[in-house]
Amino acid sequence: MLKIAVLGCGRIGVMHAANVAAHPRASLAGVYDIIAAAADACGARHGAPVFDTPEEVFASPDVDAVLIASATSTHSDYIEAAVAAGKPVLCEKPIDLDLKRVELCKSRIAGTDLPIMLGFVRRFDPGHRAARQAMLDGEIGDLHQVTIVSRDPGMAPDAYIETSGGIFRDMTIHDFDLARFMLGEEVETVFATGSRLVNPALMDRCNDYDTVVVTMTTASGKQAIITNSRQAVYGYDQRVELFGNKGMVISENHRENQVTRHLNGATNVSAPLLNFFIERYSEAFNAEIGHFVDAVENGVPVEVGFEDGRLALVLAEAAFKSIADGRAVRVSEIG
Amino acid sequence: MLKIAVLGCGRIGVMHAANVAAHPRASLAGVYDIIAAAADACGARHGAPVFDTPEEVFASPDVDAVLIASATSTHSDYIEAAVAAGKPVLCEKPIDLDLKRVELCKSRIAGTDLPIMLGFVRRFDPGHRAARQAMLDGEIGDLHQVTIVSRDPGMAPDAYIETSGGIFRDMTIHDFDLARFMLGEEVETVFATGSRLVNPALMDRCNDYDTVVVTMTTASGKQAIITNSRQAVYGYDQRVELFGNKGMVISENHRENQVTRHLNGATNVSAPLLNFFIERYSEAFNAEIGHFVDAVENGVPVEVGFEDGRLALVLAEAAFKSIADGRAVRVSEIG
Amino acid sequence: MLKIAVLGCGRIGVMHAANVAAHPRASLAGVYDIIAAAADACGARHGAPVFDTPEEVFASPDVDAVLIASATSTHSDYIEAAVAAGKPVLCEKPIDLDLKRVELCKSRIAGTDLPIMLGFVRRFDPGHRAARQAMLDGEIGDLHQVTIVSRDPGMAPDAYIETSGGIFRDMTIHDFDLARFMLGEEVETVFATGSRLVNPALMDRCNDYDTVVVTMTTASGKQAIITNSRQAVYGYDQRVELFGNKGMVISENHRENQVTRHLNGATNVSAPLLNFFIERYSEAFNAEIGHFVDAVENGVPVEVGFEDGRLALVLAEAAFKSIADGRAVRVSEIG
Amino acid sequence: MLKIAVLGCGRIGVMHAANVAAHPRASLAGVYDIIAAAADACGARHGAPVFDTPEEVFASPDVDAVLIASATSTHSDYIEAAVAAGKPVLCEKPIDLDLKRVELCKSRIAGTDLPIMLGFVRRFDPGHRAARQAMLDGEIGDLHQVTIVSRDPGMAPDAYIETSGGIFRDMTIHDFDLARFMLGEEVETVFATGSRLVNPALMDRCNDYDTVVVTMTTASGKQAIITNSRQAVYGYDQRVELFGNKGMVISENHRENQVTRHLNGATNVSAPLLNFFIERYSEAFNAEIGHFVDAVENGVPVEVGFEDGRLALVLAEAAFKSIADGRAVRVSEIG
Repeated sequence: MLKIAVLGCGRIGVMHAANVAAHPRASLAGVYDIIAAAADACGARHGAPVFDTPEEVFASPDVDAVLIASATSTHSDYIEAAVAAGKPVLCEKPIDLDLKRVELCKSRIAGTDLPIMLGFVRRFDPGHRAARQAMLDGEIGDLHQVTIVSRDPGMAPDAYIETSGGIFRDMTIHDFDLARFMLGEEVETVFATGSRLVNPALMDRCNDYDTVVVTMTTASGKQAIITNSRQAVYGYDQRVELFGNKGMVISENHRENQVTRHLNGATNVSAPLLNFFIERYSEAFNAEIGHFVDAVENGVPVEVGFEDGRLALVLAEAAFKSIADGRAVRVSEIG
Repeated sequence: MLKIAVLGCGRIGVMHAANVAAHPRASLAGVYDIIAAAADACGARHGAPVFDTPEEVFASPDVDAVLIASATSTHSDYIEAAVAAGKPVLCEKPIDLDLKRVELCKSRIAGTDLPIMLGFVRRFDPGHRAARQAMLDGEIGDLHQVTIVSRDPGMAPDAYIETSGGIFRDMTIHDFDLARFMLGEEVETVFATGSRLVNPALMDRCNDYDTVVVTMTTASGKQAIITNSRQAVYGYDQRVELFGNKGMVISENHRENQVTRHLNGATNVSAPLLNFFIERYSEAFNAEIGHFVDAVENGVPVEVGFEDGRLALVLAEAAFKSIADGRAVRVSEIG
Repeated sequence: MLKIAVLGCGRIGVMHAANVAAHPRASLAGVYDIIAAAADACGARHGAPVFDTPEEVFASPDVDAVLIASATSTHSDYIEAAVAAGKPVLCEKPIDLDLKRVELCKSRIAGTDLPIMLGFVRRFDPGHRAARQAMLDGEIGDLHQVTIVSRDPGMAPDAYIETSGGIFRDMTIHDFDLARFMLGEEVETVFATGSRLVNPALMDRCNDYDTVVVTMTTASGKQAIITNSRQAVYGYDQRVELFGNKGMVISENHRENQVTRHLNGATNVSAPLLNFFIERYSEAFNAEIGHFVDAVENGVPVEVGFEDGRLALVLAEAAFKSIADGRAVRVSEIG
Repeated sequence: MLKIAVLGCGRIGVMHAANVAAHPRASLAGVYDIIAAAADACGARHGAPVFDTPEEVFASPDVDAVLIASATSTHSDYIEAAVAAGKPVLCEKPIDLDLKRVELCKSRIAGTDLPIMLGFVRRFDPGHRAARQAMLDGEIGDLHQVTIVSRDPGMAPDAYIETSGGIFRDMTIHDFDLARFMLGEEVETVFATGSRLVNPALMDRCNDYDTVVVTMTTASGKQAIITNSRQAVYGYDQRVELFGNKGMVISENHRENQVTRHLNGATNVSAPLLNFFIERYSEAFNAEIGHFVDAVENGVPVEVGFEDGRLALVLAEAAFKSIADGRAVRVSEIG
């Protein structure tokens, strides 16, 4: 049993705490949140200790590892503290909104052989993984095009958008990582286009976009296309298509149930898509915890590490620059 | 070019006439209907001769073959006249509502080697045929269960129902033939149950049923299940499922188009089913004409002949008897 | 927290024990099995007490309720003992293979107001329930036909088949209950046909069938069709179709994942069906426990009780009689 | 009956001639091809006159209108000749590979009020049209993203590729037009990326691409994404997705039939996609002829005219320039 403490008891931290508590090979070593009431509620739910400060977490001998789900601005500090304390880390994305801070963190933890894992949960989705495995098994031959459609069911609250770092660092970052996971080769150029169609006023105020398309290419010519929208009224649209010279494999959307209706004027009417990421990726979040336990306890190499977190952020930066310049940006221009 | 005359210019005769006229290997040698105006309209549409009497059709040297699409009560007479005149026959189902009349017709045309083909059009449906071919190719191993769902989009007019001979002779008869086509073995027992749910008053008056289930078995234990309703508001429901010890193959429904809608609360909303038999089985009706031409011109054995027409009627009779007696009826009890 | 003891630590008992242990509103009060090693293993896995005798279970003040998952022949005895001890019961189907024993049990527990719940798990499947709810909400108008396809992925071991009481009491019994659940009206007549196609030698020896079709009707003319096979090589085939005068709703099959392959010669290739009942109905088994807790702790009426268990067995008996007699059997003839 | 002459009896000309001959409101006034044998064969098949020169076609009083399906290099000359002769034109895409020649043609036919229609057949596909109509009817609210996947089943012959003008002028041109049709607003910027993955040697030799992605935006921020490949081994992949603020509508792929297979290890195995454009767009080609007849005989405004042909070519030019420059190209830079 790996004793994991969870830092941050917001929506995603609370979910992680529950997953850790229920996991057959992990236990909840305690929780911390800057808002004491949030930590108290979460700890009470699972009968887990509540820490008063992050320092106590890192110092505690009853904590084997930490799961960082606090505000983005704390991620790098906590990673550094955990490494200093010799504790393995599972950290929610992104590492930081500022690539310079990420580089600094990278240099500060350089040389550690502690498992540092990034929470790019989609890598652990059984469907996406099965699609990738089919590709690795040669079913579609050589990969030519990766197409990712990723649309949120609805616009996040204004406050979230205002501090999210922009759509590429907050939302597309998952797709950047997923594209890298599928491409099996580093991205060389990034072209992005962004529009303000869902909530133009908010987007204007934040200098952000709610509707974007990103095209990326690798050295060998593989292409990845990411299509994002902040609002799909039909649900959380999550599709990944891998196209190769011998075939195509698609990880399709998930629905609430497998019921179809056949009525006057419409047939095959199906349930809404699973909504939202906690439901859609529930299996993936659990598998993520399992992989982290394997990494810490069994020495299994971390599948998605600090450098993956950094590179996803580099792609986000490249995307913003691409829109600003109206051109394809080479990743090497960024970092 | 096979010169085919069409007897009967009602809805189905008009469709057959158009198919014959448009067929690359057939031409419309003329039309006849007891209602002269109907024949005139149909003939004019295709620039084809209009015959004043059936006798003229059978006597005409410009008629190579006849397609009988007139009222059911005339089918046997016309078949006999066509055989006497040496003209091959493609006759709409059923041969007659009265099995005795069918037996008489059978004896009267005994010995002819003219192609006599029955219009069980579903045998020529590309989807149903592809499913059967998969079975013949061994894809599902030994056949165990044939499941046919066949539901009309809406109740036929009262006048039609009143003289149709009952649901088994009029509607299920197609499914009886299709089941025999798929089973590849004769039916031994028939059990039927019937309800009056769509239009109870009409059904009471006609001593008929609008909602029926028929279960049939063969000597080797193969099972066929037919589910019928006179009214499916979502369209013309036509499904055939072949289940065997190595797999299952399904001939699924056809839709107006391949467009799907994804809206607030419902995804994958698909078009209505093709409606009605003229649209749904348009390819099949054309293939039927093609097979008839092959039979007459190239000596290809008729795939669905007089005896198939008689046996389908035997199954219909067995179904009525099964409801009356509340038991499984052996086909050998009927004829 | 409802403290539930599990009697019987075979495949299904072990699953129930795990579900109870993991349930947020239940705890595993202990386990018992006639094979001590089985009970020990199961108890150890969850840190739960192991009882040496069933009597100890019923006598224990630490047991609030019992879940009976032992051999069928013990069900009635345990139900009676539990009622005598004042403990609510959740009992796996069937109550007994012998209807007389069931009637006796019924009389012995007459008058109890303890919750006695039968484990007809399919009633708790979210898909089946959503389909039924759509019907109750009027989406398909008046129900006309219920079609249940239920095929196991592969033949059970010989030893299981030899003592199962026959396909209708062991396998179809779930479908009998599900049909009653959907019909909302009692079955009046039953017609069944059975074949020996999957393993004829075994079926001959057991005087049983591996491939059956059952047609049932209610007083108002509603029809239910059940199609069973002991072996569907493509997986655990579980479909329920509700057809009414305003539409149709289908609870479709479940697959391992939502990945499709598109290759040379075949498109839309989908994953195998979920296999077997523990995976396919995992949500339902959990919901079943939840309903039992609600019944015991909150006085929610048991949705599927002793009488439902008895009536499903009556339908099984009617089905066997129908095959023997070659006729539709009225349920009132049985009991 | 509109008497239409067909210029060019290659694969697509032969198909058009057959469609014209079979069309209820058109007749084949004759055919011409630079290879006399090709014209003779095509004319003979339909009993239609064969012209010896294009001049004869334009001069013939028996020709009401012309359908230009000859080599691309002849299109502009023939359009000009037809206009000079007062004959309406239905011309296959593209007008010319050289935008300057197109501009010249435009100036030469300026002022004509003859119907000049371009053969962008996908506009007439019932599925694509139904999707667009759903959008026009407000079903998806405001359009945000148009996603077109268009992949040929296999690489065209080398000789074709070498003279096609490149993938954007030959293949993507259909998608450029379809995107404009769906966007309902002119494209402002074009970004393209191209790879050589299917046949790198051929692509190197022709300085062309076989795998491309194009992203386009309009003034209001609408986005269109086109994904092309010269080779999809699973068939002719033709999908159009319209995404808006109230929903999404998809025109899905078409298959040979509606048969599904369910086997050991794979379920829902479906037929290959319809292959190739003549089968996939057969209804559309017919509807195209119908629209042309309507335009000529009934004065219905041509839905897709010379300017649409020119603008599609402008987008193709912009795409090539975008790859060359590695940036988004404004359409106004081209013409």
